[in-house]
Amino acid sequence: MSQLSQKHLLGIKNITREDIELIFETARSFKEVINRPIKKVPSLRDITIANVFFENSTRTRLSFELAEKRLSADVVNFSSSTSSVKKGETLLDTVNNILAMKVDMVVMRHSSPGAPHFLAKHINANIVNAGDGTHEHPTQALLDTYSIMEKHGSLEGLKVAIIGDILHSRVAISNIFALQKLGAEVMVCGPNTLLPKFIGALGVKMELDVRKALRWCDVANVLRIQLERQQIKYFPSLREYSLYYGINKKMLDELDKEITIMHPGPINRGVELNSDVADSEHSIILEQVQNGVAVRMAVLYLLAGGKD
Amino acid sequence: MSQLSQKHLLGIKNITREDIELIFETARSFKEVINRPIKKVPSLRDITIANVFFENSTRTRLSFELAEKRLSADVVNFSSSTSSVKKGETLLDTVNNILAMKVDMVVMRHSSPGAPHFLAKHINANIVNAGDGTHEHPTQALLDTYSIMEKHGSLEGLKVAIIGDILHSRVAISNIFALQKLGAEVMVCGPNTLLPKFIGALGVKMELDVRKALRWCDVANVLRIQLERQQIKYFPSLREYSLYYGINKKMLDELDKEITIMHPGPINRGVELNSDVADSEHSIILEQVQNGVAVRMAVLYLLAGGKD
Amino acid sequence: MSQLSQKHLLGIKNITREDIELIFETARSFKEVINRPIKKVPSLRDITIANVFFENSTRTRLSFELAEKRLSADVVNFSSSTSSVKKGETLLDTVNNILAMKVDMVVMRHSSPGAPHFLAKHINANIVNAGDGTHEHPTQALLDTYSIMEKHGSLEGLKVAIIGDILHSRVAISNIFALQKLGAEVMVCGPNTLLPKFIGALGVKMELDVRKALRWCDVANVLRIQLERQQIKYFPSLREYSLYYGINKKMLDELDKEITIMHPGPINRGVELNSDVADSEHSIILEQVQNGVAVRMAVLYLLAGGKD
Repeated sequence: MSQLSQKHLLGIKNITREDIELIFETARSFKEVINRPIKKVPSLRDITIANVFFENSTRTRLSFELAEKRLSADVVNFSSSTSSVKKGETLLDTVNNILAMKVDMVVMRHSSPGAPHFLAKHINANIVNAGDGTHEHPTQALLDTYSIMEKHGSLEGLKVAIIGDILHSRVAISNIFALQKLGAEVMVCGPNTLLPKFIGALGVKMELDVRKALRWCDVANVLRIQLERQQIKYFPSLREYSLYYGINKKMLDELDKEITIMHPGPINRGVELNSDVADSEHSIILEQVQNGVAVRMAVLYLLAGGKD
Repeated sequence: MSQLSQKHLLGIKNITREDIELIFETARSFKEVINRPIKKVPSLRDITIANVFFENSTRTRLSFELAEKRLSADVVNFSSSTSSVKKGETLLDTVNNILAMKVDMVVMRHSSPGAPHFLAKHINANIVNAGDGTHEHPTQALLDTYSIMEKHGSLEGLKVAIIGDILHSRVAISNIFALQKLGAEVMVCGPNTLLPKFIGALGVKMELDVRKALRWCDVANVLRIQLERQQIKYFPSLREYSLYYGINKKMLDELDKEITIMHPGPINRGVELNSDVADSEHSIILEQVQNGVAVRMAVLYLLAGGKD
Repeated sequence: MSQLSQKHLLGIKNITREDIELIFETARSFKEVINRPIKKVPSLRDITIANVFFENSTRTRLSFELAEKRLSADVVNFSSSTSSVKKGETLLDTVNNILAMKVDMVVMRHSSPGAPHFLAKHINANIVNAGDGTHEHPTQALLDTYSIMEKHGSLEGLKVAIIGDILHSRVAISNIFALQKLGAEVMVCGPNTLLPKFIGALGVKMELDVRKALRWCDVANVLRIQLERQQIKYFPSLREYSLYYGINKKMLDELDKEITIMHPGPINRGVELNSDVADSEHSIILEQVQNGVAVRMAVLYLLAGGKD
C-alpha cells in the first residue's frame, strides 16, 4: 500500500521528490483507467470529498470533480457565491461545519495565500490546495511536470522557460518548485513589470526577451495574461504584450530545434499564443488537461491512504 | 443493437423519419422504466456526460440530468455563469478542454444559433443540442410529437396549430419540422408582429385569428409569451396579447369537438392560457414533462450506440 | 417496517411525540452508519429526491444532500437563482413540473411561510420543509432536541433557554414546539424589540436579562443575530447587542453549574457568542452539525416508507 509522506497537498515547496515520483507512477495507472471504455475504479467509494471553492474556477473544479467521480467517491460542491461565508462566518467555522458532516477530504480554492495551510493546522481531514491566491497551485504544477516527463522521458537537465505574467501566477511558483525538484533548469521570461522581485532568490534565470528565452529552452510554458486584471491599468497593455511577447509559428520556425509548447488555459488566442502555435504539433495543451484528471486521481487516491 | 443514423442530435431539420420513430420506440420502453418502482437502468454506466449550459435553463437541464442519472451515466454540470468563458476563452477551446477530460457526450445550450453545429464539425464526441438561440430545440420537438402520438395514436393527417410567439421560438421551428416529417398538417397562429417572415416558406398555414385556429386544429400547442422580452417594447403588450390570443375554457366549449392542449412551459397563467384550460382534461402539459425524461433517455441511449 | 404517522414533514407543530421519538431512534442508527468507515446504506437507492431551494442555504442544503447520498438516493438540485420562477411561473407549476419527471420527494426551502403546506395539499409526493420564511424549520428543531437528548439523556423537566433574535427565527418557533412535546421547560430571552408579541401565547417564559436566563437554564440555545438585516436600522445595533446579550466564558464561570451551549450556525463570533464559549467543552455546536445529517437521514428514510 503506497502512501505520501504527508497528509495534505498544500504546495510543492514542501513535498519531496519521492512523493512527486510516487504521484506520477500512480497517475500513469489512472491515465490508463480513464482511457479504457470503463473509466471508473471503486477505490474511494467510502470517501466523501467536498470541493470548497471560495473563488470561481470551472476548469479546475471540473477536473477535480471528474477525478473524484472516477474514483467512485461521494462528491459535494460548495461555492462561496451561495454560502454562509457571506453571512460573516469564519473560514475555520465553515470548514469545520463541513467536516462535522463527516467529509473526509477537502479540495479548496481560496483567494488568500496560506488559507489551506492555516486550515491544515486546525482540522482533521486531508486538504488539497486547488489554488491559494498568488501563492501555490500544486496539482497544476504536478500535471505540467507529468506532461513534460511523458513527452521528454525525464526532466533531468531539461530547460524549461515559463513565459508571461509571473507576478500574478501561482502556477509559475508551483512549477518552479516542481521543475527544480525534478532536476530541470528553469527560466522565467516576461516584461519587467510582471516579474516579481523575489524571483531571483528562487535560483531561476530571468530573461526579458522572449526570442532569447525560446532559443534557450526545450519546453515553453506560456502563461495566460489575465484579462480580468485589465481594469487596473498596468504596463504593458494587452496590445503591447501580444506585440512583444505573443508567440507565433514564425518565431518557432526560426529556431534550429523543436520545442514543446504548454499553456495552463484558458488561452487568450492572439494574445500570449497565436492559434498556429496553440493548435500545432508542438503543443501538448490538451494532453495537459487530460493528465490533469489522472494526476488529481493519483493525489486523492494516495492521500486517502492508497486503499485498494 | 439499434442506432441512430447520425452521431449527434443537432436539430430536427436533418433527421430522418426513421430516426424519429426509433427514438419514439425506445422512449416507450424508458417511460415504462421511469414508472417502475426501480426507475434506473445501468445502460450508460461507463459514459460521462457534461451538461454545458451557456444559457440558464432549469427545466431542460433538470430533465436531461434526470435522464442521464436514470441511465446511470456520470454527470458533470457546467454553466457559463461560473465559467472561463467569461475569461475570454473560445467556445471551441472550452469544449475541447472538457472533452480532454474524457467526456463522452455533451448536452449543450447556447444563445447563438448554430453553435452546436459548429462544434460537431470540430470535436469527437456526441453532441445533443438543448437549444441554440432562436434556431432549434430538437428534444422539445421530439417530446411534443411523442406526446401527441401517445394521445392520438398517430400524427398522420392530424392538424396541429402552434399558437403564440413564433418569432422568438426555437420550439416552434423544431416542432414544425418534426410534425411535417411525421405526416401532420401544421398551422402557426399569432399576431403579425410575432410571425417571422420566412415562416411561409416552411409550408405551414398562417392564421391571425386564434378562434379560427382552434376551430381548424386537433391539437393546439400554445407557446409562452416571454416576459423577459417585455423590457424591449413590442406590440402587442401582455394585456393585449391575453385579450386577443389568451385561451380560456369558454373558447374551447364553443368548439364542436375536443382538442388537445399543449404547452412547453413555463406557463404564464392568465396570459396565453387560463388556468381552466391548463388544468383541464384537454391538457397534456404534465404528460409532456414526463415524456421529456423518457425521450431524452432514448436520445442519449441511442447516440451512445445503444449498448445493452 | 417503521413509518411516520404522516406523509410530509412540514413543521413540528402538528407532529406527535411518538413520531419525534421514532425519528430519534432511527437517527441513532444512522449516526452509527456515518461514523463507520463505510458511511452509506442502500436504503433509498430507488428514490429520486429534489432539493428545491428558493432561498440560499449552504449549510442546510449540504446537510440534506449528504443525508440523501448516504441513503443512496438519486439527487437533483434546483435553486431559484437559475430557475424558471424568475420567468413568472407559479410555485405549484414549478413543483408539479419537477414531480412529473418522477421525483419522489421534495426538500423545499421557501421565503413564504406556509409554502410547503400549500404544496402538500396539491401534490402527490413527500415534502420536507427545509425552512419556510419565519415560520418553521422542523429538521433544525429535531437535530437540536436530538443533540440535547444525546447529551442529557432525556428532555423531561430540562430547562432550555432560547436566546437572541426570536422575532425573525423559524428555528426558535420549531424548537419551542419540539421542546414542549418532549417535556422540557422553555424560556425565550432577548431584547424586547426581538421578541414577537405572540410568543407569550406559546406557554414559554420570557426574560430580558441574559444573565438571569443563564442562571435559570440547563441548556442555552443561542441564535444568530442576522447581519443581513442590519441594512434595515433596528434596535439594538450589533455593538449594543453584543454588549448586553453576547455570552462569554466569564458569564458561564460565574454560574454555580455547567450549562450546555448550542448554536444553529453560522456563528458571528464576538457578537452573540465569544470564541471562548463557542469552542469550550460546554459547546455541542459541531455535534449538532453531525447530528443534522443523521436526523435528516432518519426523516427521509421514514417518509419514504421505511423500506429495507
